[in-house]
Amino acid sequence: MKKALIVGATGFGGLGLIEILLRHPGIRIKQLVARKDAGVPVSRVFPHLKGYCDMLVDPPESIDYNDIDIAFFSTPDRAGMTLIKEFHRRGIPVIDFSGDFRFGSESDYAVYAANKGMETAHLAADALPEAVYGLPEINAEKIAGARIVGNPGCFAVSMILGLLPAVEKGVIEGASIVCDGKTGVSGAGKNPGEANFYPQRYENVNTYREGRHQHIVEVENVLNARSDRQHRILFVPQIVPLNRGILTTIYADCAPGLATADIQAMYREYYKGKPFVYITDSSPNTTDVRGSNRCEVRAMVDERTGKLFITSVIDNLLKGQSGNAVQNANLMFGFEETAGLSALPFYP
Amino acid sequence: MKKALIVGATGFGGLGLIEILLRHPGIRIKQLVARKDAGVPVSRVFPHLKGYCDMLVDPPESIDYNDIDIAFFSTPDRAGMTLIKEFHRRGIPVIDFSGDFRFGSESDYAVYAANKGMETAHLAADALPEAVYGLPEINAEKIAGARIVGNPGCFAVSMILGLLPAVEKGVIEGASIVCDGKTGVSGAGKNPGEANFYPQRYENVNTYREGRHQHIVEVENVLNARSDRQHRILFVPQIVPLNRGILTTIYADCAPGLATADIQAMYREYYKGKPFVYITDSSPNTTDVRGSNRCEVRAMVDERTGKLFITSVIDNLLKGQSGNAVQNANLMFGFEETAGLSALPFYP
Amino acid sequence: MKKALIVGATGFGGLGLIEILLRHPGIRIKQLVARKDAGVPVSRVFPHLKGYCDMLVDPPESIDYNDIDIAFFSTPDRAGMTLIKEFHRRGIPVIDFSGDFRFGSESDYAVYAANKGMETAHLAADALPEAVYGLPEINAEKIAGARIVGNPGCFAVSMILGLLPAVEKGVIEGASIVCDGKTGVSGAGKNPGEANFYPQRYENVNTYREGRHQHIVEVENVLNARSDRQHRILFVPQIVPLNRGILTTIYADCAPGLATADIQAMYREYYKGKPFVYITDSSPNTTDVRGSNRCEVRAMVDERTGKLFITSVIDNLLKGQSGNAVQNANLMFGFEETAGLSALPFYP
Amino acid sequence: MKKALIVGATGFGGLGLIEILLRHPGIRIKQLVARKDAGVPVSRVFPHLKGYCDMLVDPPESIDYNDIDIAFFSTPDRAGMTLIKEFHRRGIPVIDFSGDFRFGSESDYAVYAANKGMETAHLAADALPEAVYGLPEINAEKIAGARIVGNPGCFAVSMILGLLPAVEKGVIEGASIVCDGKTGVSGAGKNPGEANFYPQRYENVNTYREGRHQHIVEVENVLNARSDRQHRILFVPQIVPLNRGILTTIYADCAPGLATADIQAMYREYYKGKPFVYITDSSPNTTDVRGSNRCEVRAMVDERTGKLFITSVIDNLLKGQSGNAVQNANLMFGFEETAGLSALPFYP
Repeated sequence: MKKALIVGATGFGGLGLIEILLRHPGIRIKQLVARKDAGVPVSRVFPHLKGYCDMLVDPPESIDYNDIDIAFFSTPDRAGMTLIKEFHRRGIPVIDFSGDFRFGSESDYAVYAANKGMETAHLAADALPEAVYGLPEINAEKIAGARIVGNPGCFAVSMILGLLPAVEKGVIEGASIVCDGKTGVSGAGKNPGEANFYPQRYENVNTYREGRHQHIVEVENVLNARSDRQHRILFVPQIVPLNRGILTTIYADCAPGLATADIQAMYREYYKGKPFVYITDSSPNTTDVRGSNRCEVRAMVDERTGKLFITSVIDNLLKGQSGNAVQNANLMFGFEETAGLSALPFYP
Repeated sequence: MKKALIVGATGFGGLGLIEILLRHPGIRIKQLVARKDAGVPVSRVFPHLKGYCDMLVDPPESIDYNDIDIAFFSTPDRAGMTLIKEFHRRGIPVIDFSGDFRFGSESDYAVYAANKGMETAHLAADALPEAVYGLPEINAEKIAGARIVGNPGCFAVSMILGLLPAVEKGVIEGASIVCDGKTGVSGAGKNPGEANFYPQRYENVNTYREGRHQHIVEVENVLNARSDRQHRILFVPQIVPLNRGILTTIYADCAPGLATADIQAMYREYYKGKPFVYITDSSPNTTDVRGSNRCEVRAMVDERTGKLFITSVIDNLLKGQSGNAVQNANLMFGFEETAGLSALPFYP
Repeated sequence: MKKALIVGATGFGGLGLIEILLRHPGIRIKQLVARKDAGVPVSRVFPHLKGYCDMLVDPPESIDYNDIDIAFFSTPDRAGMTLIKEFHRRGIPVIDFSGDFRFGSESDYAVYAANKGMETAHLAADALPEAVYGLPEINAEKIAGARIVGNPGCFAVSMILGLLPAVEKGVIEGASIVCDGKTGVSGAGKNPGEANFYPQRYENVNTYREGRHQHIVEVENVLNARSDRQHRILFVPQIVPLNRGILTTIYADCAPGLATADIQAMYREYYKGKPFVYITDSSPNTTDVRGSNRCEVRAMVDERTGKLFITSVIDNLLKGQSGNAVQNANLMFGFEETAGLSALPFYP
Repeated sequence: MKKALIVGATGFGGLGLIEILLRHPGIRIKQLVARKDAGVPVSRVFPHLKGYCDMLVDPPESIDYNDIDIAFFSTPDRAGMTLIKEFHRRGIPVIDFSGDFRFGSESDYAVYAANKGMETAHLAADALPEAVYGLPEINAEKIAGARIVGNPGCFAVSMILGLLPAVEKGVIEGASIVCDGKTGVSGAGKNPGEANFYPQRYENVNTYREGRHQHIVEVENVLNARSDRQHRILFVPQIVPLNRGILTTIYADCAPGLATADIQAMYREYYKGKPFVYITDSSPNTTDVRGSNRCEVRAMVDERTGKLFITSVIDNLLKGQSGNAVQNANLMFGFEETAGLSALPFYP
């Protein structure tokens, strides 16, 4: 059994890891670390874990570096870049959940950070060249050999997996692509605030950071590296009264002469053998994937307007976060890609 | 006091009318009619009306045509076209909530009906030339003199009010416009079915009738009649776990040289004096309008992609249905346009 | 027009007052005061008020005591007792929303405060003898002449109105009464925290402060003052994923020989002429009263067990808070008791 | 591997079985049967099963009796009693989800049926003496040898597990016990109707069948068979806007001299070794058990009133239905009681 350290164990990312690893055939949890809630059993923070996982949460100062095979940093932006050095020095591979290691260059990071209103200087810039963007559907080989993996943003996963085949095959005309993203409330994390205040959310839909969400640079980077064109994404995130789930509708100008059947065939072919991408020809529901590591994609051509229209759904906490991270870990350890990730969608 | 007949009194459209008219200074309810629930007090169907309105619901056969100043047909498609003749003969003005009288021509109606999977022949085609499209923000004068008003579709209201200034001023380039519409569950009406089944809806977002919703023809008709271009709408409706509310995000190519400030000024100018359209420069929430007859619109230019981006929110049951209908009735009777419609948004 | 000051204007209590007073025929808002959010328009805090009420929020230091006819303290516990002196000195009547003035004695206040985990010494004890418990259904005359009114707790309103007739008429045997209270999330107020954290609340029911909620002493005080017996309440509050609404189920041993019809007749008789208490013989819904100032009560006898079973529903923000407060103000000003309070329940 | 037939495969009970058996180490699904939806893949009915289980649903006429080790009847009341004969003849053990086989006598069944408004004659009365009440926590040995198991009602599970220790140990005084049950909407099944109509449920709590719910007789039967007293249950079910989950609060007169610590010790002792009953001393949440087969129970004494107060939470679709059924099947096959049932609660 491989042994895992989870830093940031008491947020939703940490919780997702705990839940998956408790049932994982090849990885077990060695230590739970978090600044907040240190000193109490994790089942005090998440009472549904009572009796299943009552490990104590340790403070960051008490990290035990010995005998760890992998570290998950389920930490906010700019935490991983300060933690990385010691792990790197000891050769412990790391998967980071924030934007700290999603970019190969300081300049891209700076754009990301500015969009999020953070300081833009990267504090571990020398590690960036080694960092691998952790989306297994495009980088499986690199991830298998990586020491630092930047786990993707949840919205970014839904946009990239929805767009990859079309972009790589060059069927998108024009420069701009519209991504209209709807996310559940859990995406705002586990600290109570305006974004997850029940009376504000229970019967509300609103847009936010229209055209300037931090995931835009991540998506453009990945897609344009695989395309002859330089696409520009107009991404408008929205919060809907779900707890879990992202549904992104994507609109682009389609190359002429293509019908829905052509596009669907292209998508099926592209994702053949990818265990967590499911191509459908009917309208996706977020409940089709909730609780699973699946991304469901549907692509069609609207003949009246010549638009390519794609829908992509994921569970933001699984394929959008901890599920995808364990998928990365499986690749790094040489396990089955699906190990520990076979949970069915949870319905109703 | 003017006297109103409500046909279809026990659906959500009828309920909205009852609630508004109970407080209206110039209109009172004379008779409630519905096929379903006939013979019981309307407060048995809607228990929250107990003590406020306990009128009996009469069957359609018992309509009393005497002494009625207006009839609201809050009825499904193809009911109004069979009811209209007698009202017309007696000179009783009618506001119909379905698609029966939204179109001036049989051919447009046929497109609408086909999209909805209905029979396409109109059964009161001779009345169509007289019918006025009941959106007060564009047709106030015609509505004031109309005998037959086709109350608009809820999604159509949100799209048209969001797009009108841009389309009329000619700032949209290219033919196609993307409308991504999110609606609450009450839009599916008051009969239990898949679309409003709680376990399917409470934690789900899904698309449906992508590119072929029946409101597309309605929107294109209205907009293209006011434009030099012939726009084509790609409209993708989605159901979100709200009860009430529509938020539509709209994307189009913007004429060059325009900034957000220009567009906002144009929108403010266009809607000056319209009591129910509110232009904002911040992100709209559906809760900003829930329970009120207001449509809130925000328009901006995304400089990176050159897209015009518009958000429009309404309460689908008020500005999207019964509130708009009473606004029409106010114009027809020469009342203040806002009479009976001053309720604040309901929050939280 | 009477002029009102609202202290604590940016909480849900303040919001409720603003919404009611904007439509009130006899009272208008003179000043909005709050520590948090001072300096911005109230419509920045509550965007649904945009265009309806854009008054600036003033800090407590800027209270203008001149030309005020009434002050509403929609403030947390222990704020009113520090504010009261100056208002009292100037003869300005006050309605306080906290527990500060609900008790005639320091010792009762101390029990209340201890249950809530607060300091137990009252800082304006000399004002207590003048304070009137602000439940119009029992204290209308005293309220009409009062200078200090302690607006009741939301759960207390539902319990007292549910129990009053049975207790006064002496039909409850035995000492103990069980009250099982279900409340929506808005009862936890407008500051984001665990109690209104969306991911915790959206699909959860839980009990809390079982048998030691602060409203118990309030209810026992009121009921036992009107009874030969000294009843003891076992009250178990629960949070359910509503936004608004309280439904309390009440169980007590019924005096022998009474049937449901007797009890219902007794309840109808008792509340005759009370405009906001509605007696029903069918199962109440919280949606029957949401958005209105109504309390709906249903009483029955379970023949198998000899229990009296009562259900009571209110909107916790209206009859449970600001609606009841305006009802008190109407009595104090000699207005119709229902002035400004005629809003129908909001459904769906 | 044992082979299972599921009759009623396209309701929520059937779905729960499918989801559990797809991951079960010792049982696999041999055939899915349902009248509604026959002829289509089960993943058309439940799209989240796409790719995981695409078996066709067969009509009841096509049941293949060969090579079946167990049959689950996830069917409505009065279906199992007509199906049972052929299974019985062939010696195929059956677990029925309705009330058909929960009672040892025709007279008890008649009370149950009358409360539910059904015909009261049992159509397979000769099978009743063989039927075992399928609650493993009390009947494990009998279930292990049973040929017909009546799976308990969901509310009944929550009440019985909450009350058993107190009743058996004789610490409840007086005859009557109050059970105040809150259930999610999925309890109303998979057919759209008033009880699961989204606009009616999303922001509503209401009581129903107060004192006359069909589970009362089931609970009284089980408890009184283990008690010197003849307890009478006053059970008031309520629907809350959850999808899954039951929280029942239970009130009874406590024998004198007992403190919370005594009761808790008694409960812990009683359920020692029962893998699915978890005793807690803090306030239970329905989210503590949602998605798991666990029942969480908390018992305390309210010293002020002398009442025993118990809270019990389950997932109505798992411990309240299909999870409990698989637990029974595990006993019948001699598997580990927990086989296939190790899923953690699903949160958030």
